Amino acid sequence: MTYCIGIRLNAGLVFLSDSRTNAGIDQISTFRKMIVYEKPDDRFMVLLSAGNLSISQSVREILQLESIDRGHNRPALTIWNAESMFDAARVLGAAVRRVYQQDGPALQAAGVDFNASMIFGGQIKGEAMRLFLVYSAGNFIEATRETCFMQAGESKYGKPILDRMLTPTTPLDEAAKCALVSMDSTLKSNLSVGLPLDLLVYREGEFRSEQIVCIDERNPYFQMICSSWGQRLQEVFKGIPDPVWDGGATEHPLCTPSDRYELMRKLARPEDRIV
Amino acid sequence: MTYCIGIRLNAGLVFLSDSRTNAGIDQISTFRKMIVYEKPDDRFMVLLSAGNLSISQSVREILQLESIDRGHNRPALTIWNAESMFDAARVLGAAVRRVYQQDGPALQAAGVDFNASMIFGGQIKGEAMRLFLVYSAGNFIEATRETCFMQAGESKYGKPILDRMLTPTTPLDEAAKCALVSMDSTLKSNLSVGLPLDLLVYREGEFRSEQIVCIDERNPYFQMICSSWGQRLQEVFKGIPDPVWDGGATEHPLCTPSDRYELMRKLARPEDRIV
Repeated sequence: MTYCIGIRLNAGLVFLSDSRTNAGIDQISTFRKMIVYEKPDDRFMVLLSAGNLSISQSVREILQLESIDRGHNRPALTIWNAESMFDAARVLGAAVRRVYQQDGPALQAAGVDFNASMIFGGQIKGEAMRLFLVYSAGNFIEATRETCFMQAGESKYGKPILDRMLTPTTPLDEAAKCALVSMDSTLKSNLSVGLPLDLLVYREGEFRSEQIVCIDERNPYFQMICSSWGQRLQEVFKGIPDPVWDGGATEHPLCTPSDRYELMRKLARPEDRIV
Repeated sequence: MTYCIGIRLNAGLVFLSDSRTNAGIDQISTFRKMIVYEKPDDRFMVLLSAGNLSISQSVREILQLESIDRGHNRPALTIWNAESMFDAARVLGAAVRRVYQQDGPALQAAGVDFNASMIFGGQIKGEAMRLFLVYSAGNFIEATRETCFMQAGESKYGKPILDRMLTPTTPLDEAAKCALVSMDSTLKSNLSVGLPLDLLVYREGEFRSEQIVCIDERNPYFQMICSSWGQRLQEVFKGIPDPVWDGGATEHPLCTPSDRYELMRKLARPEDRIV
């Protein structure tokens, strides 16, 4: 599996991906899942891919060649001439569909799902930044103000912290920190996600980024996140009072005796069904 | 879906379940997923069920009747006469298999997975406490010192906090708090899990429990958990320094210029594949 995050903020975009690929638990490899498409002062796009590696590599291979024929009098649409990120996402979707045409039937015959999901975001001059999640059918959804991040791959472990911390006004570096904390929780709970990580921060209107880094286990900042977050979580956790049973005198009682006995009566008589 | 947690500690057992059942997003109902089987001073067992509600209700219905014929000269094995929790779990597994025999083919014909998983734990006199996760094939695994908790249903959102906080020496009330925090994160990130919750704490060797409570949105302790945990998480998160790019002078730099440019060179040239 994989874990990838894309975040669209007012200030810019944040992308983070791990690099573990596994076919079963005993075939684990390291592959980068982030690729950057840049044309200075014109467009800056980032693609993160999750799912079957052969599919995402094929998609990336043909993405730059891929074009959608718009008719005889106009040049074919590519990610390099698209006038909007929406059109660029359509080109990406078309690339996914082309791989499906090429490989789908053989994969199906072999019992392998056509499984690919891709986070694709960036900015094309004349337009605001946009962020998409492209599915294996080549269709896609776009991040909005209400849902300002997209996840692909092993997304559930790290979702609560993103849900709690991110809004469109979150500063870029804070969002990068949040993505790294989300990744740290995922790494701790799921073997199929692994270091090194690729992190990229894009600032609105720049059409380039110098904030990109490959993070391995020796990275001082990520080491600090891993140890501080776990440790302070422990402190916060210990700081929240334990439940007090029948605590009529406490500020936040877990229950009163009447709650309890009523429920016990319902649950503990095996001859009753409790529904 | 559902979210259920069972925890086996040196001091006792903790069980927590939500009560949301949904068939699609627009058919949501409330059903209790916890049932207690108690024979004073002899045995105390708790069953939490996730998956298809018709399956788990059928399993519970026949569990008390279900028996495994052990031969002509011995009485049939039931959860009420089993001499070990392992045997009681076998009875539960047999009940699941009986429902599969009854309903499996019709469910399959209707395109419905035979989907059920159950957390089953407790203590029978003469034996230590034990905790099992029973799968839809009726097979099961047991919690150990290394992995002292079992989850069923929507387990991923709430797993990181359990991974970080629980060990066999965790006190019972602290483990109950941890289960509630795990449930809070799951409730916040997944609509298919919902209040009220059933929480039960069992103390080793007692063969009964008075620590059982149904928690709804008005519960003062759970309200405190929901607000305090989110708020203190925010504080801790804000307290961790944001990444500093090219921060040679900072204590935990995210990167040095050389890291960065090398990677940018690799990722940003679209003519290269980056693998």
